[in-house]
Amino acid sequence: MELLKKKIVEEGIVLSGQVLKVDAFLNHQIDPLLMLEIGKEFKRRFEGDPITKILTLESSGIAPSVMAGLEMNVPVVFGRKHKSLTLTDDLYVQSVYSYTKQQTNEVTVSRKFLSAEDRVLIIDDFLANGEAALGLANIVKKAGAQVAGIGIVIEKSFQPGADKLREAGYRVESLARIASLDNQKLQFVNEPAAEEDSHVQLV
Amino acid sequence: MELLKKKIVEEGIVLSGQVLKVDAFLNHQIDPLLMLEIGKEFKRRFEGDPITKILTLESSGIAPSVMAGLEMNVPVVFGRKHKSLTLTDDLYVQSVYSYTKQQTNEVTVSRKFLSAEDRVLIIDDFLANGEAALGLANIVKKAGAQVAGIGIVIEKSFQPGADKLREAGYRVESLARIASLDNQKLQFVNEPAAEEDSHVQLV
Repeated sequence: MELLKKKIVEEGIVLSGQVLKVDAFLNHQIDPLLMLEIGKEFKRRFEGDPITKILTLESSGIAPSVMAGLEMNVPVVFGRKHKSLTLTDDLYVQSVYSYTKQQTNEVTVSRKFLSAEDRVLIIDDFLANGEAALGLANIVKKAGAQVAGIGIVIEKSFQPGADKLREAGYRVESLARIASLDNQKLQFVNEPAAEEDSHVQLV
Repeated sequence: MELLKKKIVEEGIVLSGQVLKVDAFLNHQIDPLLMLEIGKEFKRRFEGDPITKILTLESSGIAPSVMAGLEMNVPVVFGRKHKSLTLTDDLYVQSVYSYTKQQTNEVTVSRKFLSAEDRVLIIDDFLANGEAALGLANIVKKAGAQVAGIGIVIEKSFQPGADKLREAGYRVESLARIASLDNQKLQFVNEPAAEEDSHVQLV
């Protein structure tokens, strides 16, 4: 997604060989128009799939998910990392290990918002080791629902998550794929742009 | 806002005389189309005010804020209740006491996303004791920026927050105002509907 890649290049900050900071537009300050375009792109990629619900994780997954939900006309549910006092229902509980924070969170989703009839698109802001996405997929399984796929805003392709998810049989759609952050330099996975593709075919 | 009040009546659950549960459409499962209408209503109420930024609090403030930001064409910043490893900048830090959770959170906002030139609309999902909104207003003050007003999705008017904020001089715009939750019964503040108003004037 060219608009997203442009934003990453212009406003992302490479903090280390592992960490890309995008708090200027995605996970602290949010660019609502970019989120809408991200929502449209998820809709385009999953067009024709009878998705009934989007599942994400608080907090940074919410903005792209709610725009995807708007475009696809389905509700969004966000898994909670911290207990809510007003969530007194039966819960799906899933341990999710965060390599970044080196801690395990108990992610919870109310049973009443996921049922066996649901076909679920999982959305998250980052894909690194895949623990969050796999945890959300496990919650979908516990509900007896289907995972339609996993939509990721930024995939760090040099970390094992994307391969892990694809090997587990999930369809993964990442809007920007980063090959490397080494030497303070951001490199995207070399993907032929759509325009170049059609040009090649025309010639 | 009639659409919101209808949703509260149909899907809200009165848990006690103090607690209204709206996790079916606002703070666990999210109705994206309702969020868009909420964003439009905030835009309408603050029309003409040269707002440059929206400030909210994770997680439940994000969905209505990002839709308001989309409609008003301004960025959204969410205060973090939990530390982020990639937020290494200078931070505004504000203690916010939660009566519901009976704990104090240190809410943080990166200094680079709020400046003295900003005119800020604060948005939150609930207004009860006003601690969160006052905390966000303090962060705006620390930045030397202006508070344009405080936009609330659901105000519990029987709790002291709304009066506290208005007495402190803030413009408060609440889209649904609840007078009472006593006896398992939800009562809205008695506000003449816009249509009734104009009817009265016509007669």
